[in-house]
Amino acid sequence: MNNRKTVKDYIRTIVDFPHEGILFRDVTTLFADPRGFRMAVDQMLHPYAGQRIDKVVGLEARGFILGGAVAHQLGTGFVPIRKKGKLPGAVISEEYQLEYGEAVVEVHDDAIAPGETVLLVDDLLATGGTAEAGIKLVERLGGEIVGCAFVVDLPELGGRKRLEKMGMDVHALCDFEGL
Amino acid sequence: MNNRKTVKDYIRTIVDFPHEGILFRDVTTLFADPRGFRMAVDQMLHPYAGQRIDKVVGLEARGFILGGAVAHQLGTGFVPIRKKGKLPGAVISEEYQLEYGEAVVEVHDDAIAPGETVLLVDDLLATGGTAEAGIKLVERLGGEIVGCAFVVDLPELGGRKRLEKMGMDVHALCDFEGL
Repeated sequence: MNNRKTVKDYIRTIVDFPHEGILFRDVTTLFADPRGFRMAVDQMLHPYAGQRIDKVVGLEARGFILGGAVAHQLGTGFVPIRKKGKLPGAVISEEYQLEYGEAVVEVHDDAIAPGETVLLVDDLLATGGTAEAGIKLVERLGGEIVGCAFVVDLPELGGRKRLEKMGMDVHALCDFEGL
Repeated sequence: MNNRKTVKDYIRTIVDFPHEGILFRDVTTLFADPRGFRMAVDQMLHPYAGQRIDKVVGLEARGFILGGAVAHQLGTGFVPIRKKGKLPGAVISEEYQLEYGEAVVEVHDDAIAPGETVLLVDDLLATGGTAEAGIKLVERLGGEIVGCAFVVDLPELGGRKRLEKMGMDVHALCDFEGL
């Protein structure tokens, strides 16, 4: 059993994407593998076994793939957090900082009922900016976040510390050093 | 049991989104409901029971939610088809017509191996332009499409006929009349 691949082994690194100097951690090779994808979903849920989770919230766009699968495994509903202008119904919005400029994420204002428990999922935790905005959206609707689950954490970018400072329970399946 | 909701009952209609005169069929209310989401995944797979499916391919972005869940239920891998410039690795591309202008979708060139069987999923079939481009991408990689599964079909827009002319097996869980 020693030669069995871990989740991290399925992730490939693309050099200089989206621009020079970046090592992009590509989870599509994990998702494309039946065993890798199943293992990622199982391991993301492991820390929350026995806890009540009413809704899974995923961040656009790779968080949708994972979130759909995680919600399906739990038997819950799935709620998307999307970039500005993509959701058709009435929304609430949060702005957050990018390297250059700002971005806005939105959630339908009736997507989470007050008191519902939520697991937030995404593929990768970097600076935590998008996740922080997502957490604020869920909490503004009265949702209670049980945890934030990621496949990859890039600890040098500080996202985990940022979310833990907000009182979040943060889990990632693996770390990568370097940007 | 007569009062049980169908998949169609969970879908809400938003008037004038993304622009005036459009009735937008919003599947987020279906996905957010535990029973609705589970039922949609089950019903999408029902026509393919007993068939070999190696990969589930989903179209960005709502097709990722559904595709992640469908792949999880089947125990297969998931492959995303994305808008231009979003995938980090080497890709192949297909251009397709929009109402005004053109768009491009891409897939990683190693995401599907020749001879693999594929189920293509998306939330909604309208003109079928994106789905047609997605089918071409899968076939250029040597994948064999078992079927194209949608939650909603808008028959007046002709997508089903277009895909059936390509030899596709097309299934949708419900129809809506009117744009």
